[in-house]
Amino acid sequence: MRRKEFEVADDEVCEAFLNERDDGVLTFSGSDGWPKAVPLNYAYAGGNVYFHGSKKGEKMSGLAEDDRAEFVVYEAHAFIPSYYSDPLMACPATLYFRSVRIRGRVEQVEDAGEKAIALAALMAKLQPEGGHLPIDAGHPKYAAQLKGVAVLRLGIEEMTGKFKFGQNLSESKRGEVINGLENRGRQGDPQTVSFMKALAPKRD
Amino acid sequence: MRRKEFEVADDEVCEAFLNERDDGVLTFSGSDGWPKAVPLNYAYAGGNVYFHGSKKGEKMSGLAEDDRAEFVVYEAHAFIPSYYSDPLMACPATLYFRSVRIRGRVEQVEDAGEKAIALAALMAKLQPEGGHLPIDAGHPKYAAQLKGVAVLRLGIEEMTGKFKFGQNLSESKRGEVINGLENRGRQGDPQTVSFMKALAPKRD
Repeated sequence: MRRKEFEVADDEVCEAFLNERDDGVLTFSGSDGWPKAVPLNYAYAGGNVYFHGSKKGEKMSGLAEDDRAEFVVYEAHAFIPSYYSDPLMACPATLYFRSVRIRGRVEQVEDAGEKAIALAALMAKLQPEGGHLPIDAGHPKYAAQLKGVAVLRLGIEEMTGKFKFGQNLSESKRGEVINGLENRGRQGDPQTVSFMKALAPKRD
Repeated sequence: MRRKEFEVADDEVCEAFLNERDDGVLTFSGSDGWPKAVPLNYAYAGGNVYFHGSKKGEKMSGLAEDDRAEFVVYEAHAFIPSYYSDPLMACPATLYFRSVRIRGRVEQVEDAGEKAIALAALMAKLQPEGGHLPIDAGHPKYAAQLKGVAVLRLGIEEMTGKFKFGQNLSESKRGEVINGLENRGRQGDPQTVSFMKALAPKRD
């Protein structure tokens, strides 16, 4: 990453973000050689990222030829208007966000037990209230379904977080932005202020 | 697209979605040959998609070697729990969403006037209330700034929308999902119901 002040080197912080969110964009090279960007729900389980889908289609054909992929999870937190820190120029306008990018190789999961674990993790995230038979490879009702669905496993080779919350600002500029957000009071603004304070560079 | 029932062939519908949203993921091949996924704000102007950023970094180096890119804009609208349409199995659980994928080639914009138009479009979208000097390539305060910033133009070669709102369901299943959403009443649910009704396949 070019701007080191925004980098999150702590894997646990990245993992917590992955567990909080539920969708991202999977990127790979298509069979036609063009880059592809596919939005997908995911679950993070046992140190891997899992997706599910059909056994046919561009993901399967592209990744069968070249298994290298990058997956990015992103959350926009707050637009910071230019006038919080500059009365004239548009240049300081920016967006505060969290993102995690994962690079690795994607494999089709063949084992019914691992498929069940991945899909159960996805359901636990998206439908935490339950309301369905537990997904179990041994259950006769699920056996055929598990055979028919494709589950992809992204093995993590590299994970990089980028959390941008004004770490590049001087203390006085950061104060102006915090002040602006506190006065605006949009839904996500209090959380953005917390991130700004928690991530502010330590000075002695 | 494999599932034709979700495809949005009307460019105007895709463009309206692009004008409504403000971020997406740009995908390209990095200098190291690996696929890259970078979340970015964008503006859609004059039939092109514009991004801004630094003149250095992985976007610039990767795209200088291979200008092919895909950009995807995505909005998750509603998680549909399995039990809306099946009391036992987890399988019907899904997410309703809108997405637009654009494939094209990315070029650096060199002309200060075109840079100003792109950045003004970005500001108009993100900071519609104004509060800054209009971005104008002829203004002495902006001339140096425009020189320093990189603006990328994605020329659209192919644009495909995918809006998934239960178009694959039978009328009775669709009724069950609409019923579930109306009872749940989360923030986005009424809009999701409108999309479901508007996109339902016409039957005579």
